[in-house]
Amino acid sequence: MNYPLVAKLLGVLCWLMGATMLGSVPWAFPAMGVAVEFESDGCYALLASITICLAVGALLRWIGRNAKLTIYRKEAMAVVGLSWVLATVLGALPYWLSGTSRGYALDDPAVAVPMSIADCLFESQSGFSTTGATVLTQLEVPALVPRCILFWRSSTHFLGGLGIIVLFVAVLGQGSAGKALMRAEMPGPSKEGSQERMQHTAWNFAAIYVMLNIVLTIILMLESMSLFDALCHAFGTMATGGFSTYNNSIAAFKSEAVDYTITLFMIIAGTNFTLLYLALIGRPGIMLRDIEWRTYIGGIAVATAVILGLSVGIYGEFDPNDSLAWFKELWVGFRYVLFQVVSIITTTGYATHDFDEWHELARALLFLLMFVGGCAGSTGGGLKVIRHVLFIKILGMEVERSYHPSVVRPIKLGGQVAGDPELKNQILLYFGLITFIFMLSWITLVAIEPESTWSRVGESAENKLIDSASAVAATLNNIGPGLGTVGAKENYSNFTSASKMLFIFLMMLGRLELFAVLVLLLPGFWRSH
Amino acid sequence: MNYPLVAKLLGVLCWLMGATMLGSVPWAFPAMGVAVEFESDGCYALLASITICLAVGALLRWIGRNAKLTIYRKEAMAVVGLSWVLATVLGALPYWLSGTSRGYALDDPAVAVPMSIADCLFESQSGFSTTGATVLTQLEVPALVPRCILFWRSSTHFLGGLGIIVLFVAVLGQGSAGKALMRAEMPGPSKEGSQERMQHTAWNFAAIYVMLNIVLTIILMLESMSLFDALCHAFGTMATGGFSTYNNSIAAFKSEAVDYTITLFMIIAGTNFTLLYLALIGRPGIMLRDIEWRTYIGGIAVATAVILGLSVGIYGEFDPNDSLAWFKELWVGFRYVLFQVVSIITTTGYATHDFDEWHELARALLFLLMFVGGCAGSTGGGLKVIRHVLFIKILGMEVERSYHPSVVRPIKLGGQVAGDPELKNQILLYFGLITFIFMLSWITLVAIEPESTWSRVGESAENKLIDSASAVAATLNNIGPGLGTVGAKENYSNFTSASKMLFIFLMMLGRLELFAVLVLLLPGFWRSH
Repeated sequence: MNYPLVAKLLGVLCWLMGATMLGSVPWAFPAMGVAVEFESDGCYALLASITICLAVGALLRWIGRNAKLTIYRKEAMAVVGLSWVLATVLGALPYWLSGTSRGYALDDPAVAVPMSIADCLFESQSGFSTTGATVLTQLEVPALVPRCILFWRSSTHFLGGLGIIVLFVAVLGQGSAGKALMRAEMPGPSKEGSQERMQHTAWNFAAIYVMLNIVLTIILMLESMSLFDALCHAFGTMATGGFSTYNNSIAAFKSEAVDYTITLFMIIAGTNFTLLYLALIGRPGIMLRDIEWRTYIGGIAVATAVILGLSVGIYGEFDPNDSLAWFKELWVGFRYVLFQVVSIITTTGYATHDFDEWHELARALLFLLMFVGGCAGSTGGGLKVIRHVLFIKILGMEVERSYHPSVVRPIKLGGQVAGDPELKNQILLYFGLITFIFMLSWITLVAIEPESTWSRVGESAENKLIDSASAVAATLNNIGPGLGTVGAKENYSNFTSASKMLFIFLMMLGRLELFAVLVLLLPGFWRSH
Repeated sequence: MNYPLVAKLLGVLCWLMGATMLGSVPWAFPAMGVAVEFESDGCYALLASITICLAVGALLRWIGRNAKLTIYRKEAMAVVGLSWVLATVLGALPYWLSGTSRGYALDDPAVAVPMSIADCLFESQSGFSTTGATVLTQLEVPALVPRCILFWRSSTHFLGGLGIIVLFVAVLGQGSAGKALMRAEMPGPSKEGSQERMQHTAWNFAAIYVMLNIVLTIILMLESMSLFDALCHAFGTMATGGFSTYNNSIAAFKSEAVDYTITLFMIIAGTNFTLLYLALIGRPGIMLRDIEWRTYIGGIAVATAVILGLSVGIYGEFDPNDSLAWFKELWVGFRYVLFQVVSIITTTGYATHDFDEWHELARALLFLLMFVGGCAGSTGGGLKVIRHVLFIKILGMEVERSYHPSVVRPIKLGGQVAGDPELKNQILLYFGLITFIFMLSWITLVAIEPESTWSRVGESAENKLIDSASAVAATLNNIGPGLGTVGAKENYSNFTSASKMLFIFLMMLGRLELFAVLVLLLPGFWRSH
């Protein structure tokens, strides 16, 4: 392991963190129109955090001053994994130093409960991993959560989304399923995956990402949001994060226009950035012919139709005397269901309706959709649509091969032969690992979280098994809300610190597609050869 | 496809079915000490079924009279899959023709509800697949369920267990994970896997199986069971089935000796028959060194300890004034918990305590244990212990390989290099298929089973998701009881016919280790080349 190089690159990250924090400082001043008076706590916390970031960055760069610039696979994985850990810790500083409150105490609504260290790390990891799960229950009370800290919270989504787009090009896209699609059409100067081509692609993707954030902010402002809300929700949408500035999430705006705008931009955020780039340079046909994108759009359409049909009658005020009642009900339901399906498939996690009131089958479908995820090379988390497409193809081929063992056929994607011979193994391995990690985390969560957590918030402890499964799925796949006690109207504040640490680990695992995190746990990884 | 040969072999199966049914006929007569008067319905139903079996058998053998005796992989799979379908249909005849009743109507306890066609097929498949899930609620009322039919019900376990042991040697053990263990130590005249060696092994295994059934019957009779009960419970135990002759399953005997005897024989039934054979010919050391068997025994020990510790205080009458109260409670609990853990790991499904009253974590652990299963080459169902051992090894190796892509190490089992290069792919594929089938069946069950099924039996519909998951796991892994509405004190009678047909398919899938059933659904499989 080239330790000096790792230190040097982590040092750059620290400085980048400090620079981004600077963007949250202005919101502490009344002149920005958000805070009523100067938010001294938040502002000083941000300034102190920036100082720490710069100092740690300087120290790490000093350690790595003699680093040789050769990056092997091992160094790349170490930098990716450690960067995420470091970003989570540094990103938690503003919450901790500002004394932000989680909300009011359950037994005394006059007492504010300060965030524990686990809370701060949870909120930070949830931001960077673009999960959007939260422990903050009173977002709208500046005395508990300063506005500038709220802006930092949404900024972590922006940074996390940007990071994952760039990492996909540099590290994660190599040797994952995304490669199959990425290689063929990836924009760049050379046909082979050279260093310059990768840099070129990374810059292009970053530019598209920033541009989309700006466009969405402007549209949301035209729909009468303030600059503050528009920026925060643009960050939450384009990163497929899900942090809001209101307790009721997007439902707070009570606006059809906002709902559909965010639905559209969630769909865009869940699309492979290669395809977005190609569409922008005038080749949208490739997107329409792309097997992953077609499955993604088709899946959203089918899931919306099924779930909409299941719970007709509970979306709006259904008036049986109105001849247009059915039409109105479907129209209202379509808005909520489409939003929710897109929000879960893209792993954003915004909510406009309490889906725990829907049909049991609808809840079960939403649970399964949590594992779908966006397209490879998007900011969406989860398993990614392409892996599901390949998984189904592989299962079918292998069942056929059980009576024809000698027949070996290549895997085809949209007419083209996809990827190397290792692809089959990699896809099966990924599903195996996800299943294993999911099961292990579920049983751990059931073990460490007392049943009193459910009874304290007035839920039945009988829901513990299914609620816990959904909480693990929602964090591992970077979605945010799950079912029941972590549902659309609830959050993660009631869980114990031990469970929160488990969620932090799961969010990181899911976001970095397992391997870059798992290797950090192997002693053999750290040995120098 | 060599269709005449397939027909001929299926014909043999029909005659074997008829011959076995003959064994249930005597129990219709009062002279056997079980029935109070001659059970005309049951007896005539059995005789009619035997006639149908013989006639269908004769027809099939006539169709296959010119068959060439060359069996390729395709024919073997077709025979295995179709045999199971045919046995299920023929085995359902006695229930249907005798007019056996499912139990009393929920709204009027004086009305007996006859078994529907789905009920008969369900009970038959549950018997042959050694699942032990039942729709019969009044086993102890001969007017509803004739004794001779009850004996036939347990006989299907015996036949199913025998069938799976022989099939493992002939078909399923080839190309599955069991091969890795089986090849090295398999008893037989030649070192290579020749035809005679296979026949030799199959006869040995069948002899051990029959002998163990006899030994267990004698022991249970010494523990003051009647011949009828002893035979039925020996069949249920050695086949890891789980059908009982009492509504309260093994709890009806209220006997520590019976509990521990059945626990021991369940453990034996879940052991690889190769190891049992080697132990019988004086080489028990191989069993003790076997990695799969050690994991199996270790898993039972750890699961028992954990689950026992979780729910101390609810097993017996806990008296805080008694200085030995803790010791007594642990002793009583140990008996119930060990029995339940062994019953679920070996996929038997007998119950002596209502485990739905235990701690939520205990219930979650029992749910996960459903996927463990017995050892390869035993009568136990599930995924088999060896697949889990290999799965964990493969996951660990592949995570390491993610930063060292060039390192290729062979999979080792207990010091020996295990199996062919395809092994890794096969293990990952099996877990992928099980996960996929489990998820698809779960969502289908949630979709087709109305929520009123829960409210009708006084359960909360909020339990639908977890209960359905456990019902799918319990049938797919051939266990029998699941959680909640299909728990230890409940059964499958309340489900709709559509759900029962799904369960029938799942039991067959799980029992034949997926492939022999899945290929039957491929149109390409039936085309002649």
